[in-house]
Amino acid sequence: MKDVQVKDIKNHLGEEIRLNGWVKNIRSSGKLLFIIFRDGTGWLQAVAFKPALGEDKFEAAKTLTLESSVRITGTPKKHPKQEDVYEVDVTGVEIVQLTEDYPIGNKEHGPDFLLTNRHLWLRSSKQWANLRVRHTVYFAMCEYLNNNDFIRFDSPILTPNACEGTTTLFELDYFDQGKAYLSQSGQLYLEPAIMSLGKVYDFGPVFRAEKSKTRKHLTEFWMLDAEGAYVEHKENMQIQEGMIRHVINTVIAKCPKELEILERDAEQLKKADAPFKILTHREAVDLCRSKGSEMGYGDDFATSDEELITEGSDVPIFIEKWPKEIKAFYMKRDPENPDLVLGSDLLAPEGFGEIIGGSQREDSYDLLLERMNDEKMDIEAYQWYLDMRKYGSVPHSGFGVGLERLTQWMTGTRHIREVIPFPRMIYRIYP
Amino acid sequence: MKDVQVKDIKNHLGEEIRLNGWVKNIRSSGKLLFIIFRDGTGWLQAVAFKPALGEDKFEAAKTLTLESSVRITGTPKKHPKQEDVYEVDVTGVEIVQLTEDYPIGNKEHGPDFLLTNRHLWLRSSKQWANLRVRHTVYFAMCEYLNNNDFIRFDSPILTPNACEGTTTLFELDYFDQGKAYLSQSGQLYLEPAIMSLGKVYDFGPVFRAEKSKTRKHLTEFWMLDAEGAYVEHKENMQIQEGMIRHVINTVIAKCPKELEILERDAEQLKKADAPFKILTHREAVDLCRSKGSEMGYGDDFATSDEELITEGSDVPIFIEKWPKEIKAFYMKRDPENPDLVLGSDLLAPEGFGEIIGGSQREDSYDLLLERMNDEKMDIEAYQWYLDMRKYGSVPHSGFGVGLERLTQWMTGTRHIREVIPFPRMIYRIYP
Repeated sequence: MKDVQVKDIKNHLGEEIRLNGWVKNIRSSGKLLFIIFRDGTGWLQAVAFKPALGEDKFEAAKTLTLESSVRITGTPKKHPKQEDVYEVDVTGVEIVQLTEDYPIGNKEHGPDFLLTNRHLWLRSSKQWANLRVRHTVYFAMCEYLNNNDFIRFDSPILTPNACEGTTTLFELDYFDQGKAYLSQSGQLYLEPAIMSLGKVYDFGPVFRAEKSKTRKHLTEFWMLDAEGAYVEHKENMQIQEGMIRHVINTVIAKCPKELEILERDAEQLKKADAPFKILTHREAVDLCRSKGSEMGYGDDFATSDEELITEGSDVPIFIEKWPKEIKAFYMKRDPENPDLVLGSDLLAPEGFGEIIGGSQREDSYDLLLERMNDEKMDIEAYQWYLDMRKYGSVPHSGFGVGLERLTQWMTGTRHIREVIPFPRMIYRIYP
Repeated sequence: MKDVQVKDIKNHLGEEIRLNGWVKNIRSSGKLLFIIFRDGTGWLQAVAFKPALGEDKFEAAKTLTLESSVRITGTPKKHPKQEDVYEVDVTGVEIVQLTEDYPIGNKEHGPDFLLTNRHLWLRSSKQWANLRVRHTVYFAMCEYLNNNDFIRFDSPILTPNACEGTTTLFELDYFDQGKAYLSQSGQLYLEPAIMSLGKVYDFGPVFRAEKSKTRKHLTEFWMLDAEGAYVEHKENMQIQEGMIRHVINTVIAKCPKELEILERDAEQLKKADAPFKILTHREAVDLCRSKGSEMGYGDDFATSDEELITEGSDVPIFIEKWPKEIKAFYMKRDPENPDLVLGSDLLAPEGFGEIIGGSQREDSYDLLLERMNDEKMDIEAYQWYLDMRKYGSVPHSGFGVGLERLTQWMTGTRHIREVIPFPRMIYRIYP
C-alpha cells in the first residue's frame, strides 16, 4: 500500500492508498462517517460507508475523536461538485492513538490560554497557514539575495558590546571574559564581512529586553540584515524594493490556500507589487501635520503618524533623509545637508508599519569617530569596527528586515505572536 | 561605464568596464604594474602599462598598497595561456582609500593574533573560500529538506528549561519570569510542530557553555534539527543520507574554485556520494576492540575510536542501536531489545567525526514518563512535551546536524574556528 500525502492526492485518483495523520473533525450520519483528515500538507474529507467498510470496522472508526492520530486507507476521487477538491472513499481505518479531551475546541479561547497551549494551538488552521507563509517569506528573501550575489554570513549572537542602545540588552556571564550580551542586530559584524565577500546577509534570532507589551513586540524575533560594498543610498533602497516585491510575488504564487484560510485578500497584496513611493522625512512630517498630527520636524513617527503616511497607498513608502539626532551613529551624513543622514525606513501599507530600516553607512574614520565620541561610546570596544574605515574603507549600505513584521503584512495578521512558532514576550517564556 | 563583478568578467571581454574592490597584491616591473584585484566574487590580475596609462596616472597607481580600496577601469581579455583565466588592461585607477600598514601580511601569524583580527582575517583567501562553502552547505541542506516537504520552523532560543544536560547552559534573568536558558537544541520544540506541519526543521544558533578548549568545540554554533511525523528509524537514516549526499554534490558543483583554494580533493569528497554503511553500536565496538581499543560494550566512542571505525571507509558510517544508558531520554526503545534505543550517529570519513545525531523518539506517554522520572527531570516543566504523547501521538523521528562540523568535512578544515564567521570559544568573545 502506497503512503500518500494530502497535497499529492490528485495524482492517485482511483488507486488504493494510505494516509497518515490526524482527525481534524468528525461527524456521522446514519451509515456514513465523515472524517476531516489532515496530515501537515493539507486536509480532505474521508468518507466511510458502513455497508462497504463492514459493521465492526465502521463502529471502530466511529470511536475516533478530535486530534486522534490515524492511518486511513482508501481510494481518492474528485469531489462531485467542487473544483480542485478531492475526497477519499475509506476502505480501512487504523487508529494510532485515540485522543481524549483535546483542550482546544471549536469555541473561542482567550490569548493566554492559547499561548500556554501554543504547542497544541499550532495545529489550528490559521496557525498552520501563518507558519507556512513564514517559511515562504523566509526563503523568498534568501532567494532574492542569493540570486543577487549576496552570501549568507551568520553574525554572532553572543557579543561583547551593544549594537543599538544599551538599556534593552539581555546580559549573561561569559566564563571569565566578563559579561556577554545577546545580539540586537548583526549589522556591525556584516560590515567587515563585505570587505571579504562583497555582499552579505545574516538571518537569525535577535533579542530586545524591551518592557513593551504591545501587539507589535517580541523579546526574541528573526531579523535579516544585509550589507553591500560599494552600494550607495539609492541602490540600497532599490535592493530592498526588489526583495520585497519578490516576496509578495512568491507568497501569492506559492501560498494561495494559506491566504484563503487566513482570509487575506491576495488582490490587495498584488497591488503592492508596483513602484514604491519615496518621501523625505521632512515631506512625511509635512504630510502628517497636514492631516492633523502635531509632530515636529525633528521627531520620529508615532504609530498613528505612520498610519497617516500610508493611508490610501497600495504600495510601501520609503521615508529617507532623517535628522541625524534621531538615527543611529553609523549612518552616513547627507552630502547635501550635514544635518541629515542617508537613512531610509520602509513602511508597509494597510497599517502594518515599519518593516525595514536601512542606511548608507559612514565610511570616514574621522566622522565616525566624532559621532561615536558624541554618543560617549566605548571606542576601545569598537576598535575592530572602526578598523573597517582604516583598511580599505568603501562606500557601503545595508538594511534590516523583521521576518515577523513582514509575515504579518503578508498574512494580514494583526498580532505578532501568531507568526512566530513560540513567541517570547515580557510575560511569556513557556512553553 | 558599466560596473562589473569579477565573476562576470568573461561576459565583457573587449568592453571598457569598471571594477570596484580592493588590492589583494601588487608588484611593479619597469613600465608594468600588476595589481591582483579582488571584489568579493573572485580575483584577477589587472595590468597597467605606463605608456598606455600615462606617467601621472601610472605613478599614482604605483602608490596603491595591500588592501587599499580601489575602482579600476579597463578592458578584460583572456589570459594568453591559462584556460578560464582573465586579465584586465587598465585604463584608469581611482583610489578610494590608501591603506597603511595592513596588519595581516603574507607571513605566518599565530591563531590568537588572527582571532583578535578576525574582522580582517576574513579577507584571506582560505577564509573567503570557507565562508562561501558554508553558505553553499547551508542552502544545500535547506533545499533538500524543502524539496522533501519539510517546513522551516524556528525553535526558540530563550527557553525555560534545558534540552540535554544542565551543566552546560548559559543562563540569564528573564524579567520577573525567573531564569531563562539559551537553547542547546531546538528538537523538543519541533516535536509539537510535526503535529501541525508534518515534517519540519529549524536551523539556527545553539549554545553550549562547555569548558572545552579543543579544535572541535565552539560555545555558539549553528545546528539544523529536523523532525518528521510517521517517520521511523530506517527512514530517518535514509533522509539523512539523502541530505548529506545532496550537500556533497552541491558543494562539488558550485564550489570548484573554493575547493581548489582550500586544496580540498573533490575526488575524495565525490567518493562519499555512495551508499552509506550501517553498523550497530555493538558491531562498532567489536571493530574498535579488534583494532586494539579497550572500550566496553556500554561505552560511547572516543575520538580515537571514531577514527578506528571510519579508517579506510570513503563513505560516512551510521552507528545505530545504542545502549539506552548513554543516549538521551527521548529515544525510542528498540522493540527487539529493550536495552537498546533506535538512535543513530553519523560519522564522516577522513577523521572528521560525528556530523549527525538522530533517533526515533519515544511515542508512548508511559514509557517516556518512566524514563523522565528515572532521569529525575522536572515533569511539570516538560508537561507540554509530554502532551505530544497524549493528544494524537504518532511514531516520529528526527536528527540534528552541526553546520560547522559538516562544513569542516566539505572544506577539509581541521579547526572549527575557521568555518564560522566570528567564533565564540571559552576564551574568546571579541571581536
